[in-house]
Amino acid sequence: MKKLVLDLDTGVDDALAISYALGSPEVELIGITGTYGNVLVEQGVRNALAITDLLGHPEVKVYQGLLHSSTTESFSVLPVSAFIHGENGIGDVDIPDSNRSAETQSAVDFIIDAVKTYGKDLIYVPTGPMTNIEAALKKAPEIKDEIGRIVLMGGALTVPGNCNACMEANISQDPEAADYLFRSGAPTTMIGLDVTLQTLLTYKETQRWRDLGTKAGTFLADMTDFYIKAYETTSPHLGGCGLHDPLAVGVAVDPALVTTLDINMKVDLEGPTRGRTIGDETRLNDPVKTMKVAVGVDVPRFLNEFMTRITNLAKNAD
Amino acid sequence: MKKLVLDLDTGVDDALAISYALGSPEVELIGITGTYGNVLVEQGVRNALAITDLLGHPEVKVYQGLLHSSTTESFSVLPVSAFIHGENGIGDVDIPDSNRSAETQSAVDFIIDAVKTYGKDLIYVPTGPMTNIEAALKKAPEIKDEIGRIVLMGGALTVPGNCNACMEANISQDPEAADYLFRSGAPTTMIGLDVTLQTLLTYKETQRWRDLGTKAGTFLADMTDFYIKAYETTSPHLGGCGLHDPLAVGVAVDPALVTTLDINMKVDLEGPTRGRTIGDETRLNDPVKTMKVAVGVDVPRFLNEFMTRITNLAKNAD
Repeated sequence: MKKLVLDLDTGVDDALAISYALGSPEVELIGITGTYGNVLVEQGVRNALAITDLLGHPEVKVYQGLLHSSTTESFSVLPVSAFIHGENGIGDVDIPDSNRSAETQSAVDFIIDAVKTYGKDLIYVPTGPMTNIEAALKKAPEIKDEIGRIVLMGGALTVPGNCNACMEANISQDPEAADYLFRSGAPTTMIGLDVTLQTLLTYKETQRWRDLGTKAGTFLADMTDFYIKAYETTSPHLGGCGLHDPLAVGVAVDPALVTTLDINMKVDLEGPTRGRTIGDETRLNDPVKTMKVAVGVDVPRFLNEFMTRITNLAKNAD
Repeated sequence: MKKLVLDLDTGVDDALAISYALGSPEVELIGITGTYGNVLVEQGVRNALAITDLLGHPEVKVYQGLLHSSTTESFSVLPVSAFIHGENGIGDVDIPDSNRSAETQSAVDFIIDAVKTYGKDLIYVPTGPMTNIEAALKKAPEIKDEIGRIVLMGGALTVPGNCNACMEANISQDPEAADYLFRSGAPTTMIGLDVTLQTLLTYKETQRWRDLGTKAGTFLADMTDFYIKAYETTSPHLGGCGLHDPLAVGVAVDPALVTTLDINMKVDLEGPTRGRTIGDETRLNDPVKTMKVAVGVDVPRFLNEFMTRITNLAKNAD
């Protein structure tokens, strides 16, 4: 069975990503590593522990990751992140703290150990900045050849960014880390705005969770409604919220959900296009392509999988 | 039989595009419309007349197009264009002037007439700025639904531009015209740097033309060698020259040479990304896609078609 590690800045859609993973019998979620972005690392770790408890999976271990990028001294949550995800990251919905704590092992060491233990069966799914995986690749470069696959949510190849014309939010937090990953040769699939802005959720779907009458269903519905409401302000043309992080988990479970382009990528680090994810023109004609970028998605099938898996989980979690 | 109109700023690779079209029995080249870019319109028209004569096809009519974009007062050739294409646009190789002149009908009116006459059998291939087709679409908007297809060389979706990080040379001459075309709904295939920088020609291939011992073969070899030499300075990592314009003609003749992405495109007109060709996020979820962007190319097959067609033409032209 494939083993998943999710690297999350838990966040609303990160919480949905946890739910999708726990609702997928094809894979085992062996750990969550915490990163920063939608929230501070500490808040994200707190949320991941509380959510796995609420969803009936207290066996999932959580590891604290690096607090900020290697090129910065600290990290603060942007006002727009708090607007979209709430001050507490999960739509300002109150759920009990877990009585568990994060493991003492660092996220970076856990990632390396997980690759050493599971090798090609390990899929690592970062849905925030690439800071932890960059550190892991620098500490143990050989894992690039040993890991099964990295399926990341981030970037934008065929559409504009969501921070500015070029830059997507996850990449914006640590462009250097993303560039390091992209050039590392690790087998990596990029699930960017190209596809995640096609997979939209509306109040109609969240009502199905609320109708379950379970704590988990109510939590997921309330949290996601907060997120949909924010989207009405930030992206009124979409008519729903983007299912960014869950789509990366969906593809980790079933790569056939998307069509991909084999391409060697880079991240622009200088000038006005800083943070742009784009093909590396110097490796355009290299016959070896180490990355796949999703450029199409089977929207109805993904939405069906998403609703079926998460609804079943939320129904049976209490 | 499909009818082709080439819209050229004749230029070295434009000359190769003419050769490819004339060497393709599947299509009839019914006219060349002149634009600016690699050269001034007048020089490009002169070159098109001289080249069609040299290649044994004086029946191909040439029409003069607009002298500059609708947003500028005039056009001057950039020094880099003269460096790549030569002062005369065709690698500073001397060939006799034609004793023909451009037609008296304007390029814009000819394009409209050609659509009215041939409808879905007409393929229009612009390999410079989109100034003439923008004017035609504004004068006769209905042609967007009547034309067979537009196959343009220009832009870059998955790789950086060649003017700056975002902007490709043809689009840079008239971003507003390209944006107008992209949003017009006309069935349009974009052959950008994504694929044209994969299709490279070297001195080995041009030697085959020189070895023919014909005037046409010698001209094509001398002209293209100038262009390859310029690429050694401008793009030393490539190891050859990009076959930009001929690939657009190749795809007009045989769409199966490339794999394409169905996508609704726009051109950034403001700010540091001005001139970038990118998916229009506001039409991302519109089920109707009016454009195809080439993201993959069968390089060996295209190079084989390119060499076979042009070599046969150059062998028999004298």
